[in-house]
Amino acid sequence: MNEEYSTASIGLVKKQYYTFAEPQAELHLESGRSFGPITVAYETYGELNQAKDNAVLVLHALSGDSHAAGKYREEDRKAGWWDIMIGPGKPLDTDKYFIVCSNVLGGCQGTTGPSSINPKTNKPYCLDFPVITIADMVAVQKELISYLGIERLLGVIGGSMGGMQALEWVLAYPEAVAAGIIIASCAALSSQAIAFNAVGRNAITSDKLWNRGNYYGSAEKILGLAVARMLGHITYLSEEGMRERFGRKRKNSYQYNYHFDDEFEIESYLSHQGLSFLDRFDANSYLYITKAMDYFDLAAKYGSGNLTEAFSRLKAQLLFVAFTSDWLFPPAQSEEMVRAILQKHKQVSYLKIESSYGHDAFLLPSPSLNQAIHNFLTCARRLF
Amino acid sequence: MNEEYSTASIGLVKKQYYTFAEPQAELHLESGRSFGPITVAYETYGELNQAKDNAVLVLHALSGDSHAAGKYREEDRKAGWWDIMIGPGKPLDTDKYFIVCSNVLGGCQGTTGPSSINPKTNKPYCLDFPVITIADMVAVQKELISYLGIERLLGVIGGSMGGMQALEWVLAYPEAVAAGIIIASCAALSSQAIAFNAVGRNAITSDKLWNRGNYYGSAEKILGLAVARMLGHITYLSEEGMRERFGRKRKNSYQYNYHFDDEFEIESYLSHQGLSFLDRFDANSYLYITKAMDYFDLAAKYGSGNLTEAFSRLKAQLLFVAFTSDWLFPPAQSEEMVRAILQKHKQVSYLKIESSYGHDAFLLPSPSLNQAIHNFLTCARRLF
Repeated sequence: MNEEYSTASIGLVKKQYYTFAEPQAELHLESGRSFGPITVAYETYGELNQAKDNAVLVLHALSGDSHAAGKYREEDRKAGWWDIMIGPGKPLDTDKYFIVCSNVLGGCQGTTGPSSINPKTNKPYCLDFPVITIADMVAVQKELISYLGIERLLGVIGGSMGGMQALEWVLAYPEAVAAGIIIASCAALSSQAIAFNAVGRNAITSDKLWNRGNYYGSAEKILGLAVARMLGHITYLSEEGMRERFGRKRKNSYQYNYHFDDEFEIESYLSHQGLSFLDRFDANSYLYITKAMDYFDLAAKYGSGNLTEAFSRLKAQLLFVAFTSDWLFPPAQSEEMVRAILQKHKQVSYLKIESSYGHDAFLLPSPSLNQAIHNFLTCARRLF
Repeated sequence: MNEEYSTASIGLVKKQYYTFAEPQAELHLESGRSFGPITVAYETYGELNQAKDNAVLVLHALSGDSHAAGKYREEDRKAGWWDIMIGPGKPLDTDKYFIVCSNVLGGCQGTTGPSSINPKTNKPYCLDFPVITIADMVAVQKELISYLGIERLLGVIGGSMGGMQALEWVLAYPEAVAAGIIIASCAALSSQAIAFNAVGRNAITSDKLWNRGNYYGSAEKILGLAVARMLGHITYLSEEGMRERFGRKRKNSYQYNYHFDDEFEIESYLSHQGLSFLDRFDANSYLYITKAMDYFDLAAKYGSGNLTEAFSRLKAQLLFVAFTSDWLFPPAQSEEMVRAILQKHKQVSYLKIESSYGHDAFLLPSPSLNQAIHNFLTCARRLF
């Protein structure tokens, strides 16, 4: 294969919507509650072929959305969040594959979430929105995929929380997906990762303006969400990567300023990340989605606490990818799943990539990642 | 030596106060500002001997205070923060040594800080309190030590920010201290550690109730300080230690609750740590003290950016102690200083202790730590 990937874009794309789970046909959530209607925002890139055997579902992480590639308007400053991966001649090659990406249930980018209008009250759901799980997100995606006329996916692929969804897909619907690519993810969050999520949620709920989730009329921003995002960004980088990029560098001068404004470059970086997040994300969605991540536990759900047993039902081919400096979803967590699958005498592929970019590495250009995804999907298609 | 240490307490102790830096004799701060008057809260344990060669200054960390050992009243539930280390027959043996511990400048436990009354306005300083440094804290301690009639300290000892103060002591006043014990500390915070401090400060300053530092009349608590403290506690534990202690255990049931109250044990632990901190700590002090930590940079201050050169002026014997699972002040940061001192052809001692307790290990019982401190001080006294 050619190691040089195209930089061509898929071009202009459009967000689409599908609504289901209307009264009498509500979705049964993992909590036992029923919920509907649900609108799911999604985008597709490339064409579904006649045999309908070329569909790949892309699954986004905590703060992602359906806009994985291309631009909505020529003048958009930024393309979709995984534009480096999706397009003609790229690893998720839109000349070959039909790529689907949807915003998760509970999100705030078009799919029904806590900021959506509750048709029963004509007000935003706020905390009346049900607590959801990764399995609920996946159940919504399954409805969308059926609606698009796809019986069996060639692949599911995602990083971080996207990897959790990919894992849920291959275990919840073992007949419905041929191959899964799970990047920088885990079978269950560590105590430390739950702790970081808990602090992020507390930063939001401690904010007076959050007002127990009823803030949608207010013009003021919930700065607690910015604090949560700043903290998140520390965990997405590595200590080593931060040292190389920011170290102890100051913004303006070698001398200290002796005031409390941002002074070190790392402070400005985090402030920028935090404040810009307020323009595109909903505080309540942050609560629901991080909670869904905390709840995700493959061993508990599918193996009565035993991870090896959880993979009994696995039929899909899997590729795991981890990054050496990722301390939020460390390689050991991927390796634990690889070992469990091998113990079940099943095939599995695993790639550990040397990187100083920490957890964020999955969103950054990587020839190794490109090649692995390209090759794995090519093989999966031959075996479909 | 006997490896069994006494559990005897120093008994009842009393907080004392010393005020200096009155008008015309204000303290010159590192920022260039002058400041006064300054009251310093301190405690002493044991007796200063005739030769005045048995004084050991104990230096506290971010959230510590002058109350290092003993109790104020028999009925106190808790003894001082380092009671396991200080007392008759303990490593900091009050039968041999005269132990002094004071609350740092900028603190909120008796020493002048942002919550103190500004005598010029009869109101709390709030953000009119000057931005201070570790060197300023040490300058205040130097005044206290002189006032107590001590010309030369047998030792300075501290963990974390206390280690920074110990390092500042031995370089700022090379003639005034014979031995320094620096535990779980560093020559300068890493980019990541600055980032955690910055998020903690943002959690406070984003809180509406903080009100640009003018909150002292309010009955409501600044929950942003609790968030900062929760985050701090994640960094004081190790991933491994958290896994062993909390894992994914839930408080009440094996089933998920599907609501946002604390559910995982790690969440309850952090909430408790955060909320109880509100009863004993001041949000503005948290800003000033973390900022002082961020500014601390031995290489920049004493070596024009070169750490080896910074130790040119070193005369004291030093013992460094680091803990394997401490990722906030990792052993590599102690080892960097040890190497720098060796490059200057000076003696130095270093102990790396195997522990899963992370940064917090310095406050927990450790026979290795006890023995190292005992032996090091015994030798230092012989050489005094």
